[in-house]
Amino acid sequence: MTETSPTQEMWYEDIEVGDRFETEPGHAIELTEENIIAFAREYDPQPGHVDPDLAETSFFHGLAASGWHTAAVTMRLLAGVGFPIGNGIVGAGVELAWPTPARPGDRLHLTLEVTSKRLSRSKPDRGIVVVDYDTINQDGEVRQRTHTTLIVFRRPDSASVG
Amino acid sequence: MTETSPTQEMWYEDIEVGDRFETEPGHAIELTEENIIAFAREYDPQPGHVDPDLAETSFFHGLAASGWHTAAVTMRLLAGVGFPIGNGIVGAGVELAWPTPARPGDRLHLTLEVTSKRLSRSKPDRGIVVVDYDTINQDGEVRQRTHTTLIVFRRPDSASVG
Repeated sequence: MTETSPTQEMWYEDIEVGDRFETEPGHAIELTEENIIAFAREYDPQPGHVDPDLAETSFFHGLAASGWHTAAVTMRLLAGVGFPIGNGIVGAGVELAWPTPARPGDRLHLTLEVTSKRLSRSKPDRGIVVVDYDTINQDGEVRQRTHTTLIVFRRPDSASVG
Repeated sequence: MTETSPTQEMWYEDIEVGDRFETEPGHAIELTEENIIAFAREYDPQPGHVDPDLAETSFFHGLAASGWHTAAVTMRLLAGVGFPIGNGIVGAGVELAWPTPARPGDRLHLTLEVTSKRLSRSKPDRGIVVVDYDTINQDGEVRQRTHTTLIVFRRPDSASVG
């Protein structure tokens, strides 16, 4: 069952494999022609991302967000409301795919599943949590799939136990 | 041997496995406290990325760029000067790791190696090129390692050959 993302901070002990969360519709982040072009001018100034006319004949057949813009918005959702880890979101590594490009008018939300967890072998105060999440628009189109390995600390008052 | 990134656009035929390029020092992109905080306020508003004082006691022990900021700057280097693909940089999938966090004062450049290429089985006008690149500061510290699968078109005037 998928539940709304928790509002209280979570530590290693609070996370179980199979947990599924999604961000609330009210927390969706909207992409616009304006913010797509602004991001791309700074970081990914290719015709398909910065020029609506040239984008028509580009690989994307119309203005599309840079995948790195989609990734940045995804981080905003994850860190802001999606997965409130007590020590913050600290990524050790990540894999991304963009099955379809994000477009102006997309209102993006996250669905997330915890796929594994284990305690660190060398550092007793923390564990490794693997999470898969999808960045999805209001029509259910998946704009990004992410597989990431996070460093999650044990609840501070329990770190000396066990 | 590592060569400076080419200045002319490249197509599938121009790329060979084992090719190694690096961006010129003059094209390095500098991270500053100001641009690290501005990016993070928008996309990754966690204490270690937005507040120099709180960052001292964060996981990063001092202000660190969001990994997604490092990723965006890396894209700017790649698309701008690092790997001038004729049809633009179109990523099918990517893996990232951040061995060390990027810091204010980092001037980032790229080194890149082509690790495989093959023609598309279904679409004769294009191929799949796998590229590994590192985002490195002026002291040789690797801030991001990227492994990415790109869609690269054949040279337009050769697409009907073979």
